[in-house]
Amino acid sequence: MPDQMYDICILGCGPAGLSAAINAKIRNKEIIVLGTEICSPPLHKAQKIDNYPGFYGITGEDLLAKFLEHALAMKIRIHHSKVELINADGDGTFNLLIEGGVLNSRSIIIATGIPYKPTLPREEAYLGKGLGYCATCDGPLYRNKDVVIIAHDAEGEMEANYMAGICSRVYYLPLYKDWGQLDAKITLVQDRPAGIIGDEYVKGLELKGGTVINADGLFVLGGETAPDRIISGLEILENHIQVDHEQKTNIPGVYAAGDCTGKPYQIAKSVGEGQVAGLNASKYANPQE
Amino acid sequence: MPDQMYDICILGCGPAGLSAAINAKIRNKEIIVLGTEICSPPLHKAQKIDNYPGFYGITGEDLLAKFLEHALAMKIRIHHSKVELINADGDGTFNLLIEGGVLNSRSIIIATGIPYKPTLPREEAYLGKGLGYCATCDGPLYRNKDVVIIAHDAEGEMEANYMAGICSRVYYLPLYKDWGQLDAKITLVQDRPAGIIGDEYVKGLELKGGTVINADGLFVLGGETAPDRIISGLEILENHIQVDHEQKTNIPGVYAAGDCTGKPYQIAKSVGEGQVAGLNASKYANPQE
Repeated sequence: MPDQMYDICILGCGPAGLSAAINAKIRNKEIIVLGTEICSPPLHKAQKIDNYPGFYGITGEDLLAKFLEHALAMKIRIHHSKVELINADGDGTFNLLIEGGVLNSRSIIIATGIPYKPTLPREEAYLGKGLGYCATCDGPLYRNKDVVIIAHDAEGEMEANYMAGICSRVYYLPLYKDWGQLDAKITLVQDRPAGIIGDEYVKGLELKGGTVINADGLFVLGGETAPDRIISGLEILENHIQVDHEQKTNIPGVYAAGDCTGKPYQIAKSVGEGQVAGLNASKYANPQE
Repeated sequence: MPDQMYDICILGCGPAGLSAAINAKIRNKEIIVLGTEICSPPLHKAQKIDNYPGFYGITGEDLLAKFLEHALAMKIRIHHSKVELINADGDGTFNLLIEGGVLNSRSIIIATGIPYKPTLPREEAYLGKGLGYCATCDGPLYRNKDVVIIAHDAEGEMEANYMAGICSRVYYLPLYKDWGQLDAKITLVQDRPAGIIGDEYVKGLELKGGTVINADGLFVLGGETAPDRIISGLEILENHIQVDHEQKTNIPGVYAAGDCTGKPYQIAKSVGEGQVAGLNASKYANPQE
């Protein structure tokens, strides 16, 4: 990805994200879409969809393929990269810290789907107090200390190996099967996490088996990330991003669309909100047009 | 149409109305869709649509046909009938006065498209004060009086012929070509309407040619009808029906979706709002489910 200023950065490539992208592309915006390998797992798994007008009785997999074909026909590419953090820049634009670099964008559309379910109870209480979602970002803080890494997928292995070179002890708890090569310094933990041990700060992790691992840092990697953890100050009500009729959030330049804004978790609603977000973010990015 | 209580009466069969119907039907609601011959004239005329996800580069006519096929596959029929007036009944249900009868419904979804453009300047000031949109409804009030009927289509001829049997004089001003058989008592006016003559009440019609026709009643037939003229008290802001995130209007049981709720006038937005309205009206109609 070149070092350029995008008009719109779209987080998510499900129905809302793709609809936003399609509409912004028609307005000739410079856009970038960041998404996962499977753009919308809930849609991908749906056996039969009867309520997206025009495709009676289609499978979720086929409908998602139609949406992706449409986007591809318009030369919209999806970058399989995850956003760690978004900061508002002094000049009103945004910096996005992603795996492998930094992006700059005039506006943001959050279309990350059904709200985040935390991996551990009380995660939010310890965020920034020993708990994090990016080990490589926070690595230097844990030099010569002990950390536990809970990983939802194999991408966590790279981060664990990196931490092994910095930390005193690294415990690795994979929540997936068939883990690969781990640094010899890493202790593999084959159990399920039960809860965070700590007072004001993280002191360790309790396992379902009853064992307690003492640690200074705890990372949860590869799980979903709640949008308000990516963008500080984003207004959330009952687990959903608050938006107005223009799909604006409380932060100027940040829009949201689809399941992340509230129920019903349905395709047509997502596609409609994505369109409105795409058109309004386009206006925001280039108000003179 | 049988004399039954519908769960939902949907006004309009464009993208918003059909999406509402599809979603309500999936919830097993008893629904009735009232619409015009061509369900969405603006969509029908669109040469190429690139931003309805799943159908890149489709014509409006083809997309509308796909939507109608989808509805038909779900056994949704469209009744080509126009609503004259909706009254809230004492028990919280609604009576709908339509051409040829009365319907009863627990809830209403308004999906009538891009807001109404009045045929005459200052129509709203004379509504119910000599100006009406249904001649046969108000006929008895004009016994032995003089009326002018402005008609957008040939359906006005039937109403004019009916009024010829009641009124002293009937002037008929067709806004279409190739009018048919008119009662011998009717005076055909081949000019364009310029404005309403009146003080508090209608006194006549001025024509573009300069002529003034004195009359006690003035009817505009077959044009679009503004939703707040059909349902008294409906909240309108800047020409659009006010709705919340659930597509509720200010009247309990009345929902709105699509172009009638505001810009952008776009298909995906309409389909999304229609879905939300359909699902929420379904809940309203049968709260115990």
